[in-house]
Amino acid sequence: MGRRSDPNHTRANEIIRATIRCLARNGFSHLTMKRLSEEARISQGILHYYFKDKRAILAAAAEHVMNDLDLRAESEFTRTADPKGRLRGMIRACLVVATVDREFWTVFMALWGESLHDSGLAVLNKNTYRRARKSIGGIIERGIASGDFKPVNVLQASAMILALIDGISLQLTFEKKLMSLPDAQRLCETVLLKYLVAPEP
Amino acid sequence: MGRRSDPNHTRANEIIRATIRCLARNGFSHLTMKRLSEEARISQGILHYYFKDKRAILAAAAEHVMNDLDLRAESEFTRTADPKGRLRGMIRACLVVATVDREFWTVFMALWGESLHDSGLAVLNKNTYRRARKSIGGIIERGIASGDFKPVNVLQASAMILALIDGISLQLTFEKKLMSLPDAQRLCETVLLKYLVAPEP
Repeated sequence: MGRRSDPNHTRANEIIRATIRCLARNGFSHLTMKRLSEEARISQGILHYYFKDKRAILAAAAEHVMNDLDLRAESEFTRTADPKGRLRGMIRACLVVATVDREFWTVFMALWGESLHDSGLAVLNKNTYRRARKSIGGIIERGIASGDFKPVNVLQASAMILALIDGISLQLTFEKKLMSLPDAQRLCETVLLKYLVAPEP
Repeated sequence: MGRRSDPNHTRANEIIRATIRCLARNGFSHLTMKRLSEEARISQGILHYYFKDKRAILAAAAEHVMNDLDLRAESEFTRTADPKGRLRGMIRACLVVATVDREFWTVFMALWGESLHDSGLAVLNKNTYRRARKSIGGIIERGIASGDFKPVNVLQASAMILALIDGISLQLTFEKKLMSLPDAQRLCETVLLKYLVAPEP
């Protein structure tokens, strides 16, 4: 989509931000090109010039949110090269998106629901999950190499780590007072470090 | 809704089963009273007699699926009184619903999405999760009492267990070949038993 200074890029980004607001407020089933053009303060003609339909916009919004999550994780990674520290940073980045920046999290949830019935979005969603597991896998590999983690199957371990974070994010979405963000962070760390460090029970 | 022999109960159940098929095929956003009446082979008038709108039907479908999951878990529990065995049974019951009986799992996913924008469904979803955590909490309490599990905060542990199962169910929904059902079962058991049995790392 070009560089940041590209006005087309800025316009597309504005549409994506408007999409995320609409999704958080009313969900994908209530998203229409008309409502979105009003939220983004552009004509429907211009909206259609950028995005063919609401599925194309959901795909772009998911890409935007995933890139943002990658940047957050990378920012956490610059703090430490220690595998346990990086795992903590990854957990924190994900939990903050799910609990504090909830608009972003609702994009993922919209994508889950639609991917069940739309083959194009299903591929996008599958690739988003592969990308997330690969990012987590990098931490695991580093930890195994350094001797911090036991030798585990990296793909399976990445899937389990992502599962725990997704699952607790879901519950915090449905019941904010279930536990505090620091408690959720600490519990995820405990469960995952025991898994990666402790011997078989 | 009365006993099984009650014809009203049977009719309501038929509508719920038709709803679950429709949800699995096209999702909640494409569910209409017209399509549902066709799927259930009843008139829209009769459909409206039983359920006010599609949200009421989603609520009934979720109740149905949750009751079914409870029955599956109870069936697993009759096999053993051992807390670790019961935990394994609970994991198995949940994973089977998510991977083998996928129609049921899509009801939960539809409920998640709609609960973000509908306060009535949000309450229902919150209560569904409380019920699931309470059921898991019973296993944890029994395991702590017997000395099989370390003394943990039961609510927090239940949330973590449910999180891992939900999260891996999600990934298996999006990528069936990610891992086999026995592998997912074994991995969940490993992660959770290490958490509940191993000392702090």
